[in-house]
Amino acid sequence: MCRWMAWSGQPVLLEELLFKTQHGLVDQSLHSRMGAETTNGDGFGVGWYGAGEGPALYHSIAPAWGDANLRELAAHVESPLFLSHVRATSGTAIQQTNCHPFRHGRWLFVHNGVLAGFHEMRRDLMLAVEPSLFADFVGSTDSEVIFRLALTFGLEEDPVGAIERAIGFVEATAQRHGIENVVQASMGLSDGVRLWAFRYSTAGQSRTLFASADADSLRRLHPENPRLQRLRGEDRLVVSEPFADLPGAWNEIPEASVLIVQPGEDEMRPFRPHFEAAKTNGAQALA
Amino acid sequence: MCRWMAWSGQPVLLEELLFKTQHGLVDQSLHSRMGAETTNGDGFGVGWYGAGEGPALYHSIAPAWGDANLRELAAHVESPLFLSHVRATSGTAIQQTNCHPFRHGRWLFVHNGVLAGFHEMRRDLMLAVEPSLFADFVGSTDSEVIFRLALTFGLEEDPVGAIERAIGFVEATAQRHGIENVVQASMGLSDGVRLWAFRYSTAGQSRTLFASADADSLRRLHPENPRLQRLRGEDRLVVSEPFADLPGAWNEIPEASVLIVQPGEDEMRPFRPHFEAAKTNGAQALA
Amino acid sequence: MCRWMAWSGQPVLLEELLFKTQHGLVDQSLHSRMGAETTNGDGFGVGWYGAGEGPALYHSIAPAWGDANLRELAAHVESPLFLSHVRATSGTAIQQTNCHPFRHGRWLFVHNGVLAGFHEMRRDLMLAVEPSLFADFVGSTDSEVIFRLALTFGLEEDPVGAIERAIGFVEATAQRHGIENVVQASMGLSDGVRLWAFRYSTAGQSRTLFASADADSLRRLHPENPRLQRLRGEDRLVVSEPFADLPGAWNEIPEASVLIVQPGEDEMRPFRPHFEAAKTNGAQALA
Amino acid sequence: MCRWMAWSGQPVLLEELLFKTQHGLVDQSLHSRMGAETTNGDGFGVGWYGAGEGPALYHSIAPAWGDANLRELAAHVESPLFLSHVRATSGTAIQQTNCHPFRHGRWLFVHNGVLAGFHEMRRDLMLAVEPSLFADFVGSTDSEVIFRLALTFGLEEDPVGAIERAIGFVEATAQRHGIENVVQASMGLSDGVRLWAFRYSTAGQSRTLFASADADSLRRLHPENPRLQRLRGEDRLVVSEPFADLPGAWNEIPEASVLIVQPGEDEMRPFRPHFEAAKTNGAQALA
Repeated sequence: MCRWMAWSGQPVLLEELLFKTQHGLVDQSLHSRMGAETTNGDGFGVGWYGAGEGPALYHSIAPAWGDANLRELAAHVESPLFLSHVRATSGTAIQQTNCHPFRHGRWLFVHNGVLAGFHEMRRDLMLAVEPSLFADFVGSTDSEVIFRLALTFGLEEDPVGAIERAIGFVEATAQRHGIENVVQASMGLSDGVRLWAFRYSTAGQSRTLFASADADSLRRLHPENPRLQRLRGEDRLVVSEPFADLPGAWNEIPEASVLIVQPGEDEMRPFRPHFEAAKTNGAQALA
Repeated sequence: MCRWMAWSGQPVLLEELLFKTQHGLVDQSLHSRMGAETTNGDGFGVGWYGAGEGPALYHSIAPAWGDANLRELAAHVESPLFLSHVRATSGTAIQQTNCHPFRHGRWLFVHNGVLAGFHEMRRDLMLAVEPSLFADFVGSTDSEVIFRLALTFGLEEDPVGAIERAIGFVEATAQRHGIENVVQASMGLSDGVRLWAFRYSTAGQSRTLFASADADSLRRLHPENPRLQRLRGEDRLVVSEPFADLPGAWNEIPEASVLIVQPGEDEMRPFRPHFEAAKTNGAQALA
Repeated sequence: MCRWMAWSGQPVLLEELLFKTQHGLVDQSLHSRMGAETTNGDGFGVGWYGAGEGPALYHSIAPAWGDANLRELAAHVESPLFLSHVRATSGTAIQQTNCHPFRHGRWLFVHNGVLAGFHEMRRDLMLAVEPSLFADFVGSTDSEVIFRLALTFGLEEDPVGAIERAIGFVEATAQRHGIENVVQASMGLSDGVRLWAFRYSTAGQSRTLFASADADSLRRLHPENPRLQRLRGEDRLVVSEPFADLPGAWNEIPEASVLIVQPGEDEMRPFRPHFEAAKTNGAQALA
Repeated sequence: MCRWMAWSGQPVLLEELLFKTQHGLVDQSLHSRMGAETTNGDGFGVGWYGAGEGPALYHSIAPAWGDANLRELAAHVESPLFLSHVRATSGTAIQQTNCHPFRHGRWLFVHNGVLAGFHEMRRDLMLAVEPSLFADFVGSTDSEVIFRLALTFGLEEDPVGAIERAIGFVEATAQRHGIENVVQASMGLSDGVRLWAFRYSTAGQSRTLFASADADSLRRLHPENPRLQRLRGEDRLVVSEPFADLPGAWNEIPEASVLIVQPGEDEMRPFRPHFEAAKTNGAQALA
């Protein structure tokens, strides 16, 4: 159920990370090794920060491996910060409005995973979304519901807290419905400056998520690799599964954690979903 | 904003009415004369009753005039009862899940028109849908909301009454939001036996809707027309705008009326939307 | 590089063989076991004989496993003879005109395999096609070239001979270009009455191809299987790889052979490509 | 049959000319005023020079007016030189490989018009293409054939002469086939530095083609128009039909002429197709 990647660092052509890297994201659309499925052919998306106002989106329902427009774009669009996603649907329609990233203003969001029992909870979850945000629903995925819940719970002011409340709310709702192990998620989020990478599941058995080691170490570890020699200080790559088999190149993001990639020192924090009905907008939905 | 047609009668190849008739539905996708737009190129759909369980759907986002699969299907699928629709979006996404007809069990529904202020009312309207039907939402159109409201209000037992209540509920909701002239609609509905054709708008200025004259008269009126000579007693065609300029061939369905095409005598009734909060499931949404 | 199946027998809904059979063709689009690739997600096609004039085609570039229209069609179209194909491109564009089956009049043709060095030979092969057939080229595949060569070499009068001459011509052309092991092919062909299934490769190492055992044996072998109990005398299924693990259910079509499924006794013949320049239309291209 | 535009000048976001200008190219896809058809909904393409190696292409079979990806790209891609095209097919398939611009190395080519009797001449024209270029054919349009003929006849060394020879060859071929008034064309060509705009038809009644007046005049003529006030010295726009009704803003390119937009003074030349069999590679095809 999906693979994603995010880049933050020096501007690169998208193809560097989508196509040219060994076992890059497009290769993972056809041959995922660590995903729930080997094939992620039910849609592709990339969102990037660059020219023009706010982030740009490209969403396609053609499998990433065979999309001629994607190959063109990737070879001609350069960006210092982008998120990309290949989709394996768990049943919802294959359409552009169900492709990640989802966008709100300057914000981009991707999700790999699934909400168990989503069909059953869909109404309750959607009702908890701030009414003024409700009409913005474009697709029918559980991922979009998580994103709009997080926006409802203050994403733009407190990104980590809002995602914790959104996931907490989902868990509380699942409990009322008698649904177990409801959340399975790795999630990426950006505002164009910082990049958040979340790893969490209710059962404590989350999908894999990795961040690249720091550029200096990588250059020293693999002096023979010209691609790695071009890395600079703040370059960081986050991936559902490692692109290449380079010892020492990847650090696993721990269970129930969030990595914040930002100017200066990056930060790793525990991620602790919680939900207190009385304090949130969504409370009314539980009343 | 859309054109549609429905056929009930002897089994015919779909192409007879989609392609081969002068100014048939596919021609209307490119050159509508009476529609709000001349081009209806934002999606196509046909639902037909025939082999297999329940009605079949074909939905396409390619413009009808250029869709090779549609041409093939139309030339090779035969049906005694089908509804077909060409779409001109008023802003919602162009995707298969927004194409008409919508289906529920044996029921098919098409809509030409628009709900004014839909964006604003979307949440209130969706909340009024029976919770067990809520998770079935596939797309983002106002048309699908009308259909699921009608299902909520008893479509399967009392089709005309349920549509009246659904439209009445929309009008009541619009009133609360200060939206005027909310409904503009011609609608088609079928359960595989009967066919309902509704014409209604809040302002009393509805889009055109026509039914073909009875087969006997048509044969007598136009003895030179081989296509009309093949018509049989119960054959009936309902169209947003007439297919050909044949004097006497088309009867306009009056404002605020519903035509019921059925075995035996067809029936024309007034269509009177109304909504009484206390008596319906949707009441809770207004509380 | 592609998987295909063909059915000849009692009329069945397409879904019986595309979706409902264990490891049916749509499952093979995602999880092929014997193909050169496990994923065949670069296009789908089915051609069937039924209502209307000549065979119908449905071609889609959506992966078969996720195509909502295909699921609908398969559940509502019934046919006594159809061929279906899932594609894994070896580089040519993913577009409907490159999807199989190809059609000419009453004839349908599917191909699994590849012509080595096709890019290099493309002009020579296309030039050998009868000039009056040349303008009919719709796509850019090697498979379509084989089909139009066979039409040039008399397919409609002598199907096996024409395919032998077409493949022979390809091998002769490859020889001039210094290309080895040029043909890798399993091919299906039908005129709506008979069904031909060819297995051949220049190197004598052809892709797998199987035909179902006769209906009587199948019913006796598997009295517990309700699907098999419905089989009748002349029912025959040809598949790139077996649908289910039923001992005794499948007979491999031998290397360099053609199976002819027809009213009465079916027939297996050797398949011997050959090309004699002097006797064919295509000769001019070699001069 | 198609509309196109080209920009050469200061870098602009594509949307400035595709979407934001009154009656820009996307509006022309739905409401062309001077084209052979009002609707150009059978495919869209843009080719631009910018980041990465060589020009980029985006081809879509969704109508331009409703393509969400196009709207995104246009709002986020900036280029100093691009060509864009909306298609109304005269019968060939609606597929990305039939969308303009066509590309070869650094060269982009667009065509509005049609070759009369193309189906009949297709083989002869394709055979005249240099064998090493033959395998590059991706689609089935007459436009691509013109482009590959021009490449055969020396486009990269002598662009105007090569197009003259290609068109001349088409006219000579048509004469042998008894086809009259074969060429109807406005064509755009670029190598990333210069931009050529051709207007020609065999009958001397070519489709319209316009170039924007020089930036100084435009600013003086329309001091009230902020968009025009941003124009700089070398900015030049070429369009099938004017974008806005601004008196003095557009100069018609004369019948049988080519405008060369280039650094320094632009140039207008007569365009005189001719074909002398003995001097060209294509000669063999006429023998």
